[in-house]
Formats: sequence, C-alpha cells, structure tokens
Amino acid sequence: MALIVQKYGGTSVGDPQRILHVAEKVAAQRARGDRVVVVVSAMSGETDRLLALARSIAPRPDPRELDVLLATGEQVTIALLSLALDRIGCPARSYTGAQVQILTDSAFNKARIRGVDVERLRGDLEAGRVVVVAGFQGVDGDGRITTLGRGGSDTTAVAVAAALKADECQIYTDVDGVYTTDPRVVPQARRLQRITFEEMLEMASLGSKVLQIRSVEFAGKYNVPLRVLSTFQDGEGTLITYEDPDMEEVQISGIAFSRDEAKLTIVGVPDEPGVAYRILGPIGEANIEVDMIVQNVGADGTTDFTFTVHRNEYERALELLQRVAADLRARDVSGDPHIVKISLVGVGMRSHAGIASRMFQTLAREGINIRMISTSEIKISVVVDEKYLELGVRALHEAFELDREPAAGAG
Amino acid sequence: MALIVQKYGGTSVGDPQRILHVAEKVAAQRARGDRVVVVVSAMSGETDRLLALARSIAPRPDPRELDVLLATGEQVTIALLSLALDRIGCPARSYTGAQVQILTDSAFNKARIRGVDVERLRGDLEAGRVVVVAGFQGVDGDGRITTLGRGGSDTTAVAVAAALKADECQIYTDVDGVYTTDPRVVPQARRLQRITFEEMLEMASLGSKVLQIRSVEFAGKYNVPLRVLSTFQDGEGTLITYEDPDMEEVQISGIAFSRDEAKLTIVGVPDEPGVAYRILGPIGEANIEVDMIVQNVGADGTTDFTFTVHRNEYERALELLQRVAADLRARDVSGDPHIVKISLVGVGMRSHAGIASRMFQTLAREGINIRMISTSEIKISVVVDEKYLELGVRALHEAFELDREPAAGAG
Repeated sequence: MALIVQKYGGTSVGDPQRILHVAEKVAAQRARGDRVVVVVSAMSGETDRLLALARSIAPRPDPRELDVLLATGEQVTIALLSLALDRIGCPARSYTGAQVQILTDSAFNKARIRGVDVERLRGDLEAGRVVVVAGFQGVDGDGRITTLGRGGSDTTAVAVAAALKADECQIYTDVDGVYTTDPRVVPQARRLQRITFEEMLEMASLGSKVLQIRSVEFAGKYNVPLRVLSTFQDGEGTLITYEDPDMEEVQISGIAFSRDEAKLTIVGVPDEPGVAYRILGPIGEANIEVDMIVQNVGADGTTDFTFTVHRNEYERALELLQRVAADLRARDVSGDPHIVKISLVGVGMRSHAGIASRMFQTLAREGINIRMISTSEIKISVVVDEKYLELGVRALHEAFELDREPAAGAG
Repeated sequence: MALIVQKYGGTSVGDPQRILHVAEKVAAQRARGDRVVVVVSAMSGETDRLLALARSIAPRPDPRELDVLLATGEQVTIALLSLALDRIGCPARSYTGAQVQILTDSAFNKARIRGVDVERLRGDLEAGRVVVVAGFQGVDGDGRITTLGRGGSDTTAVAVAAALKADECQIYTDVDGVYTTDPRVVPQARRLQRITFEEMLEMASLGSKVLQIRSVEFAGKYNVPLRVLSTFQDGEGTLITYEDPDMEEVQISGIAFSRDEAKLTIVGVPDEPGVAYRILGPIGEANIEVDMIVQNVGADGTTDFTFTVHRNEYERALELLQRVAADLRARDVSGDPHIVKISLVGVGMRSHAGIASRMFQTLAREGINIRMISTSEIKISVVVDEKYLELGVRALHEAFELDREPAAGAG
C-alpha cells in the first residue's frame, strides 16, 4: 500500500466531463489499495476570468483581496471533484488551503509555503477517504488567504507529499512526460524514463515548461520522487529523482533551448574592480533579469562585457547601458535582439570529458557560429543567431544519439 | 458615531459597476463618522451557475461539498467589494464565514448560526477599516464550510449586528421599503416608515418576500433594529423594531396575500381524539407543508376537516387524503386548487375590536364569498376564490385607509 499524491492542472479539470475523468483515475488508484491525496488547480480559464473581474473594478487590485478572489478558483474544483468522487462511490473530502492548513508567508500573490499541517489529512486517509486539496493557496499567520502565484499547485502537491512522506508525487499534465527536447522541433525526441532533479531544474528554467521550477526545487530538497504523466493518455511518464548509479551511463539527458533572448555588449571599459557592478547594478535596479554573463579581458587594460536579457527588455536594457557607457567612458555599446540559447543538460557530463568539444564540432559542421558560451557542472549553453535554432537543436540531438534508448540503466 | 451593519443582496452587487456603486454608499456612511460592517451575497446568477455546475457532475450532489462550492460565490463578492473600497481610498478587509468565524451547526445547505466571534472584526473597526463579511456561509465545529440556505445573507447580517450590538442593521434590496401591500395590486400602497417585528413576520411569511423570515426572527430575538432600504434610490426605507407607544394608533399595518394556495377537505370523519393526527400525519411525512387548518364539529358525532397547502402539492395531498379517508371511513374528500389567502396584519388589532367584522363586511359588499377564516393575535386571514384576490385586497386597502399616513406616531 503506497501513499500517492496526485496533482491535476487546470486543463485536466477544465470541464465537468474532465473532472469526472479525473475522478475515475483517482478511484482506480485507490482501488489498487493505495492511499490517495489529490491536489487540483482552478478550471482552465477560471483564474483569468477572476483576474479580469478584479481589473474591471480596480486597475491595480490590492494583492491581499486579489488572493481572496483567486482562491475561489481552486475551491470550486475541490468541491466539484469531491462531488464526482462521491458520485462514483469513492469517499472523499475536500480541503481549502486554509483548512489543511497550508501555512505561508504574507507575500500575497506569490507566497511561499512555510509548513503543512497534515494531521487532519492523515485521519481521512486512515478512514479510507481520498483527500482533495486546493492547490495554489494557503493561509498566513494572520489567517489571511494567500496564493502561491501561477503554477503554484505543483508546489502545493510537492509540499503535501513531503509533509506526508508520500511514496510518490504524480504531476498530471497535458504532456506525457519530459522529453529529450521539444518534439515540435525534433520529431525524434524521446520521452525520458528518468531524469535527476538537477537536470530537471536546468531543463525547466531553460524553457521546458512542464513543471514549475519551485516545485522541482522543493521536491529535491525534501527528496520527494516526482513523476510527470499525462491525464489524457496512459503511460509511465517521467520519474524525477536523485541520481542513481544506473544513470551514470547517460552523458546527456536532453537539449533545452530558449527563444526570445537578446544580447548586449559594452566594449572597452576599464578592467578594474567594481566595473561589473557598475554595469549590471542599474540593470538589476530596473528589474531586468540578466541570464548569461561573459567577460573577456583585453590586452590594453580594458575589457568587453556581454550579457543576455529577455527580448522584451532589450530596448530598456540598451538605453540603460548607453548611459552607463558614457559614465564609464566605454568605447562602444552594441547589441543583438535576434539570438537564442541552446543548452545540453546532463549529470553525466560531470564525468565525461569531450562533451563540449563534440558540441562545438557539431555546430561548426553545420556552419553555425557560436556567439557566447557559458558552462555549469551539468550544462553547456551556447548563444547562436535565432535562424540556427532548429538546425542546431536537431544536429545536437542526432550527434548525442538522444533518440536512442540508453544502453544501460533506466534513464 | 454609530455602528452600522449593511447588507447588500445579489442584485445590488450583480456586476462590477454595481459593486463600485455599493462601495460609494459604504464609503459615504463611513465618511459620516460611522463604523461600518458590510455583509454581501453572491453576485446575482452566480449561485445558480454553481448549482448547475454541481448538477452537471452529480445529479444529487453531496450537501457538504455543495456548500464548499456555493461558498465561493460570496467569497468572490467580498474580494471584489474590498477591491472597490480600496480603489476609492476606503480601507477595508474581507472575511469569509470561516474567517470571522460564523459558527453554525452541521446541517449543510441549511445550517443555523450558533454564534459569531466578533473579536477580530472589532479590531478592524477600531482601526477605521470597513469590514466586509461573506453572507450566507459559516463553519461548523469540525471546520467544515456550511451555508445557511437561500437568503441566508440577511440572517448573517442580523447575527453579526447582534454580536456587535450594532445600532442598526440595514438590509439593502431592490425595493425601497415595506409597503402596506403589493403596489402591483394596489397602486395606492404606501411605504411604511415603521413596522414591528411581529407584523413583519406575518407580512413576510404571507408573501411579502422582502426579508428572509429567519433574519426577522433573529432580529426580534436579539432586538436588532432592522431597516429595509433600496440600493438604487435614496430614502429612509422602513424601520422594523419593537412596538412603541406611538404606534398604538395604527390598527392595521398592511395586507399580505398569498397566491397559489389549494384547499382540501375531508368530510364526515369520526369526531374523536387522534383524528387530526391521523389525517395530517401522512401529509407531514410526505413533506407537504400545511398552512391553515380549520375543523368544524358537526351534530352527528362527525367532523369536517379543512386545510390548505401550496398549489404545487395539491395533487399529491389529494391522493394521500383519499387513502386516509378510506381508512377513516370518511364520507367524502373534496378540494379546490384555485384559492388564495388574504390577511390583515397589525399589532393594533389586539386592542381594537371590530377589525374582523369590518373586514368581513368589506368583502361581503364586494360579493366576495369567504371560504375559510383563521385568526391570530395580530392577523386575520381569509381564503377566497383566486379571481377575487385583486378586488379583495384593493377593497380592504381602501376600507382601512392604508393609503393615508397615520394621524399620530411615526408608523
């Protein structure tokens, strides 16, 4: 008998018919002898409807009352799913975030979970009931309703699983797992059976938006095995766990990429302490997120400094950088809003030399010029012209044989 | 500085524009130096929408989870009204029934309030904030969400007013007060400035559906002055309080009536103890509500027994009565599904003889045959053929001069 936490997103509970389908899946899991906790999101479209309602009353709605409003979305779903379970003879009980209680800080609209009280849930589970929990919401120390921000239901599921020491936390979504890369770009992309938390974090933050990053961090921190599955088709999905010895054979798990990047360079600034801060300080203050940063030291005591930002922020960043350049007496400022980032991700690269050179060779063979390079322990990222995105990803997918099931291990 | 509880129904908060209008009214009350608690219903149509959603999933939805669902309706309104107040610079804080807490029993869908904890509300009021409370909902001893049943928001307002010892509980609705009778029947009908709780109960239960009966009982029990006003036009409305000496001059406050009644008679049953129970027992068991009951004793040791039910229940009641008649060897069963009830209501009739005879005389002069009569301390009801409803009400309204402002007192 296992204890399973299942999470269903907005699309999975998008209409009454789908809610009944989810109820069947939950009841089937329980019929296998498992104890089941279900975490649900608001029905798809509901959060947007509520937001529009709020904005029609106050253009900049008070975040505290906005959370009271938004929390009704998941409350509707927990009630409807419990009704559906009751209808098919599966005893269930619903809980709002406040009822659980899912305690958070008071950062309304983007609260963080501080703790989960699972005592009452345990009683229900022991009595054979399915527990249905509203995702995305909690309650602060003052008893006020909070929300965790978009996608927060994944985090709720992981937090509840961690508190209950569940055997597995299953995230049901509209894709059937994590792929070696986006199948729309590479039709040969293969579903991974396993991936490590670290790899998943890199894949997620680089644009494979299957899971919310915070929920993966959380699962890693509390060592909750996560599984991504499809609500609409049967299958094993992808299990996200800690590295195990079997996985060593795999060098590269997947290729992540990110469109809509832009690159800015400030040329010929004095190579002296504090210069990086003087350049990036104003960018950070303007709430512009900087991704890759590369600095090349020149021979004449000056240095070139390049970084990437989201394409939407390019114009603002360029303007700020021009002001900084004047202050610093830099030689020049240049930029390119038409670049993309491609990254190889894999815990295996830690112990395998030559991954980087094979990557660069593959891109060179296709005539793709690399504009920037950045590496971490389990990732190599390159920036290239956006026109090369598909070609680069396909060439790398083939070069690293990602379409083939690995020889040993489960991953 | 007064403490005022205001309640706005579903029509008053039916769309964002109306919610902003309510916010203006609330802020104006606060600007006069009063402390204000606002109780709101779900936006009109919302409860029906949620019910339809529930029924599309489970034809007979579990009442406990139905309450979790329905409670979201008022939660949406408290958030939106608080956003509207915040927007116009009026500090406010919302509370769900569970947050207040409004403690109820566990009769889901029709829970009764056991107590209201107003400590937290007091803190907000002292800090100058408007308190916005979700009507219609509460929480039981087990922490489960309950609802009070349709119209329960009035009861919430009165309960909160009683717990806070408010100076007045104002019920805003789409009519501007309580009238001597329905103005659609008698255009000369006059708005009452005052009416007693007892009279209001008789008026309400007889079809003047301005206020929920339970809320009036509650207000009477805890002596909370109630005022019925219009959300959409300014005015004094009607104050509902205990009788005061000034009101003695008024004999009749109003004329209530009820369409859709039906009458059933069982003729010639043995006049012996227990017979009333044997007749009405099966009716009650079938959940058919009986209104007036009249029994005439005959000379031959038998009796005739007549009662009224709602017209929708007529066929079922007739069928049951026919079975009872066979058991009791009654002479006959007869019925009439085309009758109505007209009632004179007024605390003044206690000390004034001749009201009844004047009523009967008025009806006789119009050629209206009285089919049944029933009296209480502050009410005389007659049953007549439905075709005489308008004529009877108009004749009585004129005969008792209800269109004229009373000579003395405020009522």
